[in-house]
Amino acid sequence: MSLIYDGAIQDVIDSFAKLPGIGPKGAQRIAFYLLSAPKEEARHLADAITTLQEKVRFCEICGNVTEESPCKICSDPRRDRTTICVVERPSDILPLDRTGQYHGLYHVLGGVIDPMAGVTPAKLRIKSLLERLKDGTVTEVILALNPTIEGDATMTYITRLLDGSGIKVTKLASGLSVGSEIEYADEITLGRAFAGRRSTDE
Amino acid sequence: MSLIYDGAIQDVIDSFAKLPGIGPKGAQRIAFYLLSAPKEEARHLADAITTLQEKVRFCEICGNVTEESPCKICSDPRRDRTTICVVERPSDILPLDRTGQYHGLYHVLGGVIDPMAGVTPAKLRIKSLLERLKDGTVTEVILALNPTIEGDATMTYITRLLDGSGIKVTKLASGLSVGSEIEYADEITLGRAFAGRRSTDE
Repeated sequence: MSLIYDGAIQDVIDSFAKLPGIGPKGAQRIAFYLLSAPKEEARHLADAITTLQEKVRFCEICGNVTEESPCKICSDPRRDRTTICVVERPSDILPLDRTGQYHGLYHVLGGVIDPMAGVTPAKLRIKSLLERLKDGTVTEVILALNPTIEGDATMTYITRLLDGSGIKVTKLASGLSVGSEIEYADEITLGRAFAGRRSTDE
Repeated sequence: MSLIYDGAIQDVIDSFAKLPGIGPKGAQRIAFYLLSAPKEEARHLADAITTLQEKVRFCEICGNVTEESPCKICSDPRRDRTTICVVERPSDILPLDRTGQYHGLYHVLGGVIDPMAGVTPAKLRIKSLLERLKDGTVTEVILALNPTIEGDATMTYITRLLDGSGIKVTKLASGLSVGSEIEYADEITLGRAFAGRRSTDE
């Protein structure tokens, strides 16, 4: 006596349930919301999804997502062209740029070295990074990779590649995040906070 | 120096962030997922959303969502036509039916009486419920509304309306925890609630 939803509803539920962070219950909630939503809103959502892959491509220089290649950042004349900040994914660029502390260029690796998952250096955008460094304009490469085992290993790998190139290679400071509590911080974070301690005069 | 995403990405993020249960971070995660998803998957999602409102309508008898009216349940000859189970929303029907404890018909009220939110009895599908009871086939009405203050008030209201009609009016057993929602309850709890239903006079 079990019953499933009619085709179109179940199709929407199944399609949404495939998306990251949405389970079957959440997908069902969305389907019923869309059913009673203004026709315009549902249509706009469908159009936005269709347009996404048509319009958005990857910047031929930095690998960021963009509608025009080169992207806005790569083609912005006000940007400091002596620095490149290397990130794992395009979605890392916006939060870093919002800090207002960095005005240079970016380079998207497309991941980190992870042999267990089959991600070798050749599968990352490392070759194109080296190409960008050839003409001598860039004097500093900031490795802004996530502080995971794979991220650290990738930073070590790139640092070695650039050994003797004369280019300064740095990484983001590791330590306590603002608003966190020492009592609840993990040992590795606290260890790095100790190691990176600075004079209180700075 | 703040930067936002290019039009098409931001549009997808904004559109998804409007859906229930999806925040701005979740919407961003989905947008980047869709960007690198197989073209077919993104297209299928967009098509499913577009098709939804085109194909799905409400059953002229019970108010359930359906692609054909009358719906599958109302037109199923194996269904017990002496019982109608009254629910708030179409999404309540599937979990109730899955219990296998109930083989009758349904009736979607479209909400519960809530004067503060402007929902008067006239805005609910109460009149069409009374129409369905006129020919004397139905001998029991099960009120399967969410056990909230408004749900209880609505059950009392309908019970009074049917006073003296000779129709037995029951409600689901309070195996449901107060404040919970039928849509999200598990099958066993709902099955017990069916089995333990009591007269609303008690």
